[in-house]
Amino acid sequence: VILSIGDELVLGQTVDSNSAHLSARLAEIGIPTVYHQTVPDDEEAIGRALRVAAREATLVLVTGGLGPTPDDLTRQALAAFLRVPLELHPPSLTLVEDFFRRIGRAMPAANRVQAMCPRGAVMLDNECGTAPGIRARKDDVDIVAMPGVTREMKAMFERHVAPGLAAGAGRVILTRAVHTFGMGESAVAEQLGSLMDRRRNPLVGTTVSGGVVSVRIRSEFPVRSQAQSELDRTAEEVIRILAPAVFGVDHVTLPEAVGALLREKRQTVVTAESCTGGLVAKMLTDVPGSSDYFLGGWVVYGNDLKTGELDVPAAIIASAGAVSEPVARIMAERALVKGKADFALATTGIAGPNGGSADKPVGTVWIGFARRPGGDIQSRAERFQFRGVRETIRERTAKAALNVLRLELLAPR
Amino acid sequence: VILSIGDELVLGQTVDSNSAHLSARLAEIGIPTVYHQTVPDDEEAIGRALRVAAREATLVLVTGGLGPTPDDLTRQALAAFLRVPLELHPPSLTLVEDFFRRIGRAMPAANRVQAMCPRGAVMLDNECGTAPGIRARKDDVDIVAMPGVTREMKAMFERHVAPGLAAGAGRVILTRAVHTFGMGESAVAEQLGSLMDRRRNPLVGTTVSGGVVSVRIRSEFPVRSQAQSELDRTAEEVIRILAPAVFGVDHVTLPEAVGALLREKRQTVVTAESCTGGLVAKMLTDVPGSSDYFLGGWVVYGNDLKTGELDVPAAIIASAGAVSEPVARIMAERALVKGKADFALATTGIAGPNGGSADKPVGTVWIGFARRPGGDIQSRAERFQFRGVRETIRERTAKAALNVLRLELLAPR
Repeated sequence: VILSIGDELVLGQTVDSNSAHLSARLAEIGIPTVYHQTVPDDEEAIGRALRVAAREATLVLVTGGLGPTPDDLTRQALAAFLRVPLELHPPSLTLVEDFFRRIGRAMPAANRVQAMCPRGAVMLDNECGTAPGIRARKDDVDIVAMPGVTREMKAMFERHVAPGLAAGAGRVILTRAVHTFGMGESAVAEQLGSLMDRRRNPLVGTTVSGGVVSVRIRSEFPVRSQAQSELDRTAEEVIRILAPAVFGVDHVTLPEAVGALLREKRQTVVTAESCTGGLVAKMLTDVPGSSDYFLGGWVVYGNDLKTGELDVPAAIIASAGAVSEPVARIMAERALVKGKADFALATTGIAGPNGGSADKPVGTVWIGFARRPGGDIQSRAERFQFRGVRETIRERTAKAALNVLRLELLAPR
Repeated sequence: VILSIGDELVLGQTVDSNSAHLSARLAEIGIPTVYHQTVPDDEEAIGRALRVAAREATLVLVTGGLGPTPDDLTRQALAAFLRVPLELHPPSLTLVEDFFRRIGRAMPAANRVQAMCPRGAVMLDNECGTAPGIRARKDDVDIVAMPGVTREMKAMFERHVAPGLAAGAGRVILTRAVHTFGMGESAVAEQLGSLMDRRRNPLVGTTVSGGVVSVRIRSEFPVRSQAQSELDRTAEEVIRILAPAVFGVDHVTLPEAVGALLREKRQTVVTAESCTGGLVAKMLTDVPGSSDYFLGGWVVYGNDLKTGELDVPAAIIASAGAVSEPVARIMAERALVKGKADFALATTGIAGPNGGSADKPVGTVWIGFARRPGGDIQSRAERFQFRGVRETIRERTAKAALNVLRLELLAPR
């Protein structure tokens, strides 16, 4: 059972993604989740949820309510459920104090409560924040309380919880996600055909997120080796059918896939962005070590900087418009030369909500691309029409630009 | 109580956002949510969840499990819970058949089950899909089952459920979030003091997300006007205590707050980014209409572009390092001049995971700032030490840079 604690969750101000993450990790380990429950920052409600959960499962994972403020009550509810007092745990106090020393602040008195531990329970270090976790056992039920901050929870689960769970489960569920860009979900489904039969094992399904269509494979067998080999076989088939739209597997992102190709080929890229306003550069530099292949970029949001920094003739902007084939192409060419790079990507478009017209509606985007094989500059621009709100259009544009470069890097020369 | 049904939810393949949406809508209407629970597509598990929910609440909203496939079992579980048989509901069958006629397909036999209704219950039309909803009553508890597809659920809730709830509800809950940047959560709590007493109404709590500490206020009274005036009074007090760290309320983001100030003062900004790699520019341009005050920026990720584009002397990079006070300051100054802007922000830092050293560990960041009141250029740089992973350090850096500009715009001249 997975419990999430927080007024902001029950009030609908925040969507609980922690429970889904923990469920997915438990499934990978081979532990089925009976249910998720979300309760407010209320000691009695947390206590009731713990009692029910302990009847339904042998492992109860709790997130949230371990902060330093008076509305954080998980620790107190857990002690009451265990029928033990809360006691100061000096090593945890030292860790919390150390945390504040490292960030150069005095520890507020309120944070002392984070070092309080139900008698007989074990405190779990939090490498990323101040709230230690708590592990306790009652009868034959293990209870682990972790912080609600997703990053801290994930780190704590991987370090302190997952290793102890891996052993001894009766079935193995292994999953893999194969990520594609540039194809619609129904086109992917059509190409996969009978692989998506719901009675198949491994089971194959698709999900869409941020323009990326992911093929999710779930392999469930009594023995890990069989689950693994069947998973591998299905994944290989999916990749064979969908390549070259496939850019990566599991945690690989599009910028990582592009970065790996650039590094492999020892080539460099610069960016020249208008409508994406820095997002292409931001995505490229999300990847550690991206300075090996990303040199930098220009954000020429206003037309003055398009002309002043990237030498786009004002006459062309006046005649063709800032969102046009020649502007995208010239931006890419000039960035390539000024940045002394092997490749350049450029974006110019109408992200909305305003600025659209009949022949250039919101979502109209030109993506420019330039390269210099052997020294001669080659450039081109491609028109895209994206749908959705401003954020969606900008994200799709940035990813489409990265995909233009990815397909270029894959193309045989 | 809100129940969400689905294997994909309990397996962690999908994050349940329906429950948060329904909670938020119920809070607006004045109905408090006791808890959320998520259970798999299992008739017995759904039945158990219904029985517990009906003991804890007078309204149970259920989403999911109304589809046409054999794993959709909410309808059957609901009939069993009500102790009535499922019967064919001819008008619903007609509606499902009509739906398929409209999309030009033959109705698959499997969809006939969607017209089955627990005896005595009411079917709710689905304008967006095939699965009708079901409303039933047992003793003094109302139960409404809706489709899991978010768009269909939202439409059905607004059309068939909300109108009946709005009338006659006994209490009104109004909420507001006051967002701060630059203070830790415990410092915020310390300053708010007794305002955070858990027995207080309006209730005041804090949450942290992406470095933003938000003060959440929940005002619950029998009458809307009182809930509103008490909410306003508490919000004003919170803002008075925490200003100038407060940048906005409810849906206002930090870039929006900065943009509003720039627009109000008719001033412009450019960016010069190293470690944030375009993220400051991206955040500024997240805001529609940002071209009114954001001119553009430079992403000088490699040292060659720092020198070539922003004239940072190679000798200074060699002596002080790329992550240093003079480099941050010169980047801001040169961007200000080249971009002909009123303000410039610059970032240079070590985002990690590699590249740290003893005196400049990962998370060391210099933020440069330049302005020209009356024509003379003034510049300065400030050192920050951020913790966390690469993504966190970059996000905090970009927000801290925006906050430097925000505080500057607020300062009396």
